[in-house]
Amino acid sequence: MNSKTAYAALADHFRDVVALGQVSGLLGWDQETIMPKGAAAQRSEWMSALEKLSHSQRTDPRIAEWLDAVEGADLNMVEAANVRLIRRQFERQSKVPAALASQIARVTSQAQGVWAKAREAGDFSAFQDVLTEVLALRREEAAALAQGGNLYDALLEDYEPGMKEPELVTLLGGLRDGLVDLRGRVGASDAVIPDIQGSFSHGQQTMIAHELATAFGYDWSRGRLDFSVHPFSSGSFNDVRITTRVSETDPFNCFYSTIHEVGHATYEQGISQDYGLSMLGRGVSMGVHESQSRILENQLGRSRAFTGYLFNRMTEVFGDFGISDAESFYRVVNKLHRGFIRTEADEVQYNLHVLLRFDLERKMIAGELEVADLEAAWNERFEKDFGYPVDQPANGVLQDVHWSVGLIGYFPTYSLGNIYAGELFAAMSGDLPDLQEDLGKGDTKAALAWLGDKIHQHGALYEPRETITRAVGHAPTAKPLLAYLNAKFGDIYEL
Amino acid sequence: MNSKTAYAALADHFRDVVALGQVSGLLGWDQETIMPKGAAAQRSEWMSALEKLSHSQRTDPRIAEWLDAVEGADLNMVEAANVRLIRRQFERQSKVPAALASQIARVTSQAQGVWAKAREAGDFSAFQDVLTEVLALRREEAAALAQGGNLYDALLEDYEPGMKEPELVTLLGGLRDGLVDLRGRVGASDAVIPDIQGSFSHGQQTMIAHELATAFGYDWSRGRLDFSVHPFSSGSFNDVRITTRVSETDPFNCFYSTIHEVGHATYEQGISQDYGLSMLGRGVSMGVHESQSRILENQLGRSRAFTGYLFNRMTEVFGDFGISDAESFYRVVNKLHRGFIRTEADEVQYNLHVLLRFDLERKMIAGELEVADLEAAWNERFEKDFGYPVDQPANGVLQDVHWSVGLIGYFPTYSLGNIYAGELFAAMSGDLPDLQEDLGKGDTKAALAWLGDKIHQHGALYEPRETITRAVGHAPTAKPLLAYLNAKFGDIYEL
Repeated sequence: MNSKTAYAALADHFRDVVALGQVSGLLGWDQETIMPKGAAAQRSEWMSALEKLSHSQRTDPRIAEWLDAVEGADLNMVEAANVRLIRRQFERQSKVPAALASQIARVTSQAQGVWAKAREAGDFSAFQDVLTEVLALRREEAAALAQGGNLYDALLEDYEPGMKEPELVTLLGGLRDGLVDLRGRVGASDAVIPDIQGSFSHGQQTMIAHELATAFGYDWSRGRLDFSVHPFSSGSFNDVRITTRVSETDPFNCFYSTIHEVGHATYEQGISQDYGLSMLGRGVSMGVHESQSRILENQLGRSRAFTGYLFNRMTEVFGDFGISDAESFYRVVNKLHRGFIRTEADEVQYNLHVLLRFDLERKMIAGELEVADLEAAWNERFEKDFGYPVDQPANGVLQDVHWSVGLIGYFPTYSLGNIYAGELFAAMSGDLPDLQEDLGKGDTKAALAWLGDKIHQHGALYEPRETITRAVGHAPTAKPLLAYLNAKFGDIYEL
Repeated sequence: MNSKTAYAALADHFRDVVALGQVSGLLGWDQETIMPKGAAAQRSEWMSALEKLSHSQRTDPRIAEWLDAVEGADLNMVEAANVRLIRRQFERQSKVPAALASQIARVTSQAQGVWAKAREAGDFSAFQDVLTEVLALRREEAAALAQGGNLYDALLEDYEPGMKEPELVTLLGGLRDGLVDLRGRVGASDAVIPDIQGSFSHGQQTMIAHELATAFGYDWSRGRLDFSVHPFSSGSFNDVRITTRVSETDPFNCFYSTIHEVGHATYEQGISQDYGLSMLGRGVSMGVHESQSRILENQLGRSRAFTGYLFNRMTEVFGDFGISDAESFYRVVNKLHRGFIRTEADEVQYNLHVLLRFDLERKMIAGELEVADLEAAWNERFEKDFGYPVDQPANGVLQDVHWSVGLIGYFPTYSLGNIYAGELFAAMSGDLPDLQEDLGKGDTKAALAWLGDKIHQHGALYEPRETITRAVGHAPTAKPLLAYLNAKFGDIYEL
């Protein structure tokens, strides 16, 4: 087989692999949005039948032959990236014994149920054994992958390829002191920020959510908006669907969830059509993906300029809701709340939640923290960083599903996304002198075109870090994010 | 391998085959209802990737070994039926050369587009060449399947297993003279039947459609109602979705489409849970399936008793719509219209449409009618049976998509469904003395329980003909249907 034929066979085979993955994605979307309740067990059977097929496709022994045959071939940049991504996936799969992979699948699927019950009961000890088991299995997997190297790096590779623990510690570690300090100063501030009042109808919120999605560049001809318990974006290429949720007393939940998911979705929709069903046709990493949702939600969507636009629109639709002017509205939207839950946290406190998890999970993987001591470690760290104690396990160590399903190495990508968003926003602001003026009119075209050009179109063509470095012109650090947060909240809280 | 192990392997393998088929079904449902328009090309790629996988699953050489190993094994009735259905599918596939199968897939997928354009242009000659090609390919396939036997029988086998052309000619042939005569007498009748007047809102029609689905036993915990250009029912087991459509001037279109699809859906929902992901977990044939949709739509839904209930409900919801009493309403619902289109035809004329297609396609398969002469043959037969000439090809030979996509042997199952519905309704009426009284209250519980017991629960356990014979206690004929139609329309038109 010559290298040309081998590349064609490889690309062809992975078109089907990618297509099948997208099919599973649609089934997942359907399940979370519109599936009849009674279909749940049947849906699991479908998923497991698909996974079985997908697994045998991904481990097809011909892949090794094709990969050997393309070695040293004269490939263009896109083909080379496709081969690199295929090789990475294939080698990862070859390193993990099938029995271990299936044991992880089995245990994590049970563990999620155990976690949900433990959370409901507010009893960490009920979760302890199964979490210990999940951790042991993921460490075993990491050892198989790392082949003598750093275990946590091996886990990171699934979410943020190329990222290493020390680099992440440097990047994320730069945030903690500054954020704890900023949080403390905000807490000590005398500024009084009101709350919105009234009830906001489902229909009107949905209407505005549609307008916001449109304003932030969502392509409706290749997507749709539905409702789910937890908002998400799903799909890639030309079928990228988003969901939101509606609370009649808290319209910001709906609006900013929508903008967040539109950030993920415009990334997927903006990837070059040429990469559609190749390994390049998806966001390059969790961190870069999160940077796209966060920059739209926060740096753009919660800016003084854009909230001015949103204030006018909400006033038109809802009439008086207790806020008299755009400046007050801006402060309301960005108000810091005392709270325990990561997903509900504001821009200042969010990363403190993540850093806590990042440090604890690294210690567990390194064998420096036992699961038996996790709750105490969590509570101690929380009080140190937030200034008040955890009130109950469901608001503490039991709040997130991630560890129960084996997602270890995933949390830091949230903060990485925020750091990248900070870098991208600084660079974008330099390139687009009219940005704030545009946002004041609800116009994000230039901002989205900038992101499309710098990030979206490339999909997984470059490595994650390279994608960001190329976009901003230097290696990313946490400084722009910290500077942005200090300036923004210093201003809002008159610090 | 012992026969027990072989059966388990076979059943296991086909769980996945069935699951994958259901996944394709859901993708089809999504495509016809809610898929973003821009996703069409991507969806085709998914479908073809799935079909490729499904094909290799269905032709897995281990199937032959397993089938050999279960030969003569001591299987219970359900296992034996599962093996019989697997063997039938596997043998069918082995007989058709892969090259021919893929050529048929390619040509028919193009032919549908050619047909759509020819219909739009009203030009049969533009469709002639590709139809000739489709016919030749399907005849070649039939020859491979029939191995010296009747070609049309081989085609029928895909839609109505076990049915043979001579039996079908006897069954369906018994309808033509009686229907032509009845149609003529109705046409000559002086009875004046009014039309409904007014506009019927989308929201109110949808509300009543939901009520009707509930009234006819649709299980909402395992299904949902959406909208599509052509109403359909999709899925099986615990996820069976239906669609309807709304015309603001013609609420009966929405209501009776809904009841029709509920007929298909309750069949699928009513199959024994034990058969879920086996080859038994689906309606046994097109004809039996159609009998379930037609008996709900016509014998029950268009009965004097049930239309009385519907008249009251429509009056409550819509107020006055130009019909003063339930008896007039009954006649309105059952009014015969001069028309050309099969799918819009009433109970009397519908089967004349089918018989026409049945006779013409049989002649084409037998080589007694050339495609070049098809339009003339269609027009001649239409005028003979309906009493007026076809006005344009889109209302004649070009109206149905079926032949373009190679569905030959499919049309007669529509009339077979009506004949079976006639038999089932006669038997049900004998068994349920309170049936009409129940229907007058909008109560179909007893009727649905009867169908559930006699038909639904069995899925594909028995052969189609056996399923009906067991339900009614004798071999089916067209007599009950003809008697029902003569009595009903003789009464309505005062013949």
